[in-house]
Amino acid sequence: MKIIVLDGYTLNPGDLSWHSFEELGEITVYERTNPDQTIKRIGNAESILTNKTVIDRTIIEACPTLKYIGVLATGYNVIDIAAATEAGITVTNIPAYSTAAVAQFTIGLLLELCHQIGDHSRSVHQGDWTNSIDFSYRLHPLIELSGKTLGLIGFGRIGRAVAPIARALGMHVLVTTRT
Amino acid sequence: MKIIVLDGYTLNPGDLSWHSFEELGEITVYERTNPDQTIKRIGNAESILTNKTVIDRTIIEACPTLKYIGVLATGYNVIDIAAATEAGITVTNIPAYSTAAVAQFTIGLLLELCHQIGDHSRSVHQGDWTNSIDFSYRLHPLIELSGKTLGLIGFGRIGRAVAPIARALGMHVLVTTRT
Repeated sequence: MKIIVLDGYTLNPGDLSWHSFEELGEITVYERTNPDQTIKRIGNAESILTNKTVIDRTIIEACPTLKYIGVLATGYNVIDIAAATEAGITVTNIPAYSTAAVAQFTIGLLLELCHQIGDHSRSVHQGDWTNSIDFSYRLHPLIELSGKTLGLIGFGRIGRAVAPIARALGMHVLVTTRT
Repeated sequence: MKIIVLDGYTLNPGDLSWHSFEELGEITVYERTNPDQTIKRIGNAESILTNKTVIDRTIIEACPTLKYIGVLATGYNVIDIAAATEAGITVTNIPAYSTAAVAQFTIGLLLELCHQIGDHSRSVHQGDWTNSIDFSYRLHPLIELSGKTLGLIGFGRIGRAVAPIARALGMHVLVTTRT
């Protein structure tokens, strides 16, 4: 089985290995693929992996040997699902690979709003603290989260991962969800 | 009773009120006090509040009406405790006012190491993402905390507030403590 990775760089800029795919077939990894290269690179492969490279109806109809499209991401909007279904191609995505990372990043953004640590670090390195007449130096008021309320819109995997971090920070958590 | 606040700015740059002290006596708030002003400003007051203004033996002996020194901070190294004890002066500090804030800031520093959100924000505003050939743009590898181990040296109030946040982020927490 021929396996083509169309845009491997995004998932694996060098810190991971494609090695385990070799047990499944003959794998070719392209770091990036431009739209006009996609059909030629897929050629007569049975399986392709894509992250952001668009696989539309034209491509699917031009590659009749294709049996499997693996999306190396959660969103599968880059695939024409109707065309793939008509052609009998199985399409998979990865619905929950990044739950912990997104929850962490959510809290990271919140703490950036509270502290702007990068800005303070630069300011202190420039000597602003040394030159401050006050010991307790800050560029702007800092925000304490404990006792404040966090509102979550949606309470799926990510919301349910964010809530306990916010609670551990002393926050009250309110949730609204359609379900 | 005369109450003198020697360096009110650090605790209260304008977002808090000294109003409730008025029930206890006649309060005078100085934003900052230089060392050569301290004795004169204390004068014949019974109570003083200090944050970082040093109250040493010379000052204590020059202010015999003093009965109370309130340190508006956790560390009381700015007070000569032996001299205050000899003079019968009560000294208080605030041992745990900032537990939640310090725990939050600890996690903030950790997430700054993981994401450097300020740097990325500036970079994206400068157009670096728009000009990137990859959709998943980052200035450097990001660090996911889930599954990693956090070592806490000391497990007092602050350590015990940091641990649950780290656990909610999916981290293993190891602790070492003298007690």
